[in-house]
Amino acid sequence: MSSTSLPSLPSLDVIRAAAGRIAPHTHETPVLTARTLDERAAAKVFFKCENLQRVGAFKFRGACNAVLSLSDQEAKHGVATHSSGNHAAALALAAKIRGIPAYVVMPSTAPAPKRAAVEGYGAKVIECAPTLASRESTVAEVMAKTGATLVHPFDDVRVIAGQGTAALELLAKVPDLQAIVAPIGGGGLFSGTAIAAHGIDKTIRVIAAEPKAADDAARSFESGNIQPSNDPTTIADGLRTSLAPRTFAALRAHADRVVTVSEDEIIAAMRFVWERMKIIIEPSSAVPVAAVLARRLGLPEGARIGVILSGGNVDLERLPFRA
Amino acid sequence: MSSTSLPSLPSLDVIRAAAGRIAPHTHETPVLTARTLDERAAAKVFFKCENLQRVGAFKFRGACNAVLSLSDQEAKHGVATHSSGNHAAALALAAKIRGIPAYVVMPSTAPAPKRAAVEGYGAKVIECAPTLASRESTVAEVMAKTGATLVHPFDDVRVIAGQGTAALELLAKVPDLQAIVAPIGGGGLFSGTAIAAHGIDKTIRVIAAEPKAADDAARSFESGNIQPSNDPTTIADGLRTSLAPRTFAALRAHADRVVTVSEDEIIAAMRFVWERMKIIIEPSSAVPVAAVLARRLGLPEGARIGVILSGGNVDLERLPFRA
Repeated sequence: MSSTSLPSLPSLDVIRAAAGRIAPHTHETPVLTARTLDERAAAKVFFKCENLQRVGAFKFRGACNAVLSLSDQEAKHGVATHSSGNHAAALALAAKIRGIPAYVVMPSTAPAPKRAAVEGYGAKVIECAPTLASRESTVAEVMAKTGATLVHPFDDVRVIAGQGTAALELLAKVPDLQAIVAPIGGGGLFSGTAIAAHGIDKTIRVIAAEPKAADDAARSFESGNIQPSNDPTTIADGLRTSLAPRTFAALRAHADRVVTVSEDEIIAAMRFVWERMKIIIEPSSAVPVAAVLARRLGLPEGARIGVILSGGNVDLERLPFRA
Repeated sequence: MSSTSLPSLPSLDVIRAAAGRIAPHTHETPVLTARTLDERAAAKVFFKCENLQRVGAFKFRGACNAVLSLSDQEAKHGVATHSSGNHAAALALAAKIRGIPAYVVMPSTAPAPKRAAVEGYGAKVIECAPTLASRESTVAEVMAKTGATLVHPFDDVRVIAGQGTAALELLAKVPDLQAIVAPIGGGGLFSGTAIAAHGIDKTIRVIAAEPKAADDAARSFESGNIQPSNDPTTIADGLRTSLAPRTFAALRAHADRVVTVSEDEIIAAMRFVWERMKIIIEPSSAVPVAAVLARRLGLPEGARIGVILSGGNVDLERLPFRA
């Protein structure tokens, strides 16, 4: 109803409502600690393990909230998205839970296992050519034909509210954090995390971490204008996307800083977590871990830091570990 | 003080005392569930994640209890063991916590990373020839020279009591289990688990799982006499050891059955847990998971089953996963 020109973001209350909505379907993921990592980081780090979330990523929170927020009238026509990653699988599962159709537009070049995962949750996959134009026109066609509602991977208030519920759970378990670090790609997780954290405690420093090789958030934050990355190459495949105006607004409003890390630092951090914490994280999740290990957050020694581990979907036959 | 000829085992009270003793130093590891696994297993499975324990294995519980149970007089001379696996690292860390020396006898053929892990916790490694005779004489020499107390990896009441604390925690969180499954090698974890479970609830079925390729527990249970495996070859390197009289007594007194699984089943179960649960388990931990997935426990459909995931120490450069 508002006519403001600023893109809308969820409030803390909206995130709390999302938490209640999705709770019957999501895991309350554990918060883990690791002494050897604390020693390396000179900090006390609390890891919110969204890699242990359903479909192996925080994305299920946002997708689930979006699907459960639809009216019955909207819902019966289903939901649609374009993604070949965790959001597609998350939306497929959320739709399955509500018993509605999900349409996922994927490039014909998408890896077979990713397609199989989405189809395994009962979604209909529609192939498109591997170009932005083809993807957008195909989604538009699907929506026109089916009446399905688009659920964008991050540029969506309901999705952002869902992603923010991970930080709510983390802060409920560990209330006295001095900082919270989340990876930033499109910015959905970061936005939800930042709003939840600052809604609860304005003194928490909210920090974004991203690959140096896909540093649109760092450049945008620095310059005050959105500066997209153009087809960046990073092992952190979940963070290749650039910010939308909505998530950039959250970054400007809430971020203490944006920390970038190198590809080598990402792989080393991923390996450290696998070897020392015995949990599987994907490269995107290793990005904030790398920032913490590099002591690049500008925090005093011994600071209590929350880290959102975003996901754990990797191809076990193509691991980046070398002797 | 007892002169009975039966080897002694800890009581439930002794396990509870161990739990209090080690609590300041151990992680209360999470209990995880996974719907896709439940579907495959036709059961409701609760995983006690000792792979997320310190040093990456339940072994830290037993080693910690043994070290903290020593008198000051005993403790000052340190502890000794022969092992190149998780027990050695666990004992090294426990000794470090108490501030006493640890002596670990390892064959000269032990992999460098295992030796480095033990030394990393501050233990002194003493090399021996890779034979049983050399190992035993070297340990005897070390003990004679230093006055150190031997802490056996499983044939030790204090160690068994410590291992039983994982089941205590599991049953405190999930009290209404119908069965509990633990891997069995030397039998320390199985014995502690069985005594804890039956001490709390006599109706729980306690099930041991082992590799078909190292089936000494199955053969011993069947025949009523200890039937060791002679240098067995299995990927589940933590389960190559055979039972001691003490742990065989616990097996006979408590086991509902011993389930064996093939090497292929172990690798497939390990992969299933990595891919679906996003946690790193070692092959020995995959053994009870394989038994559950094979529906070989003799339980009704939908049974509530606890599984102890024993550890997560693997070499990331030598994973058994193939395309």
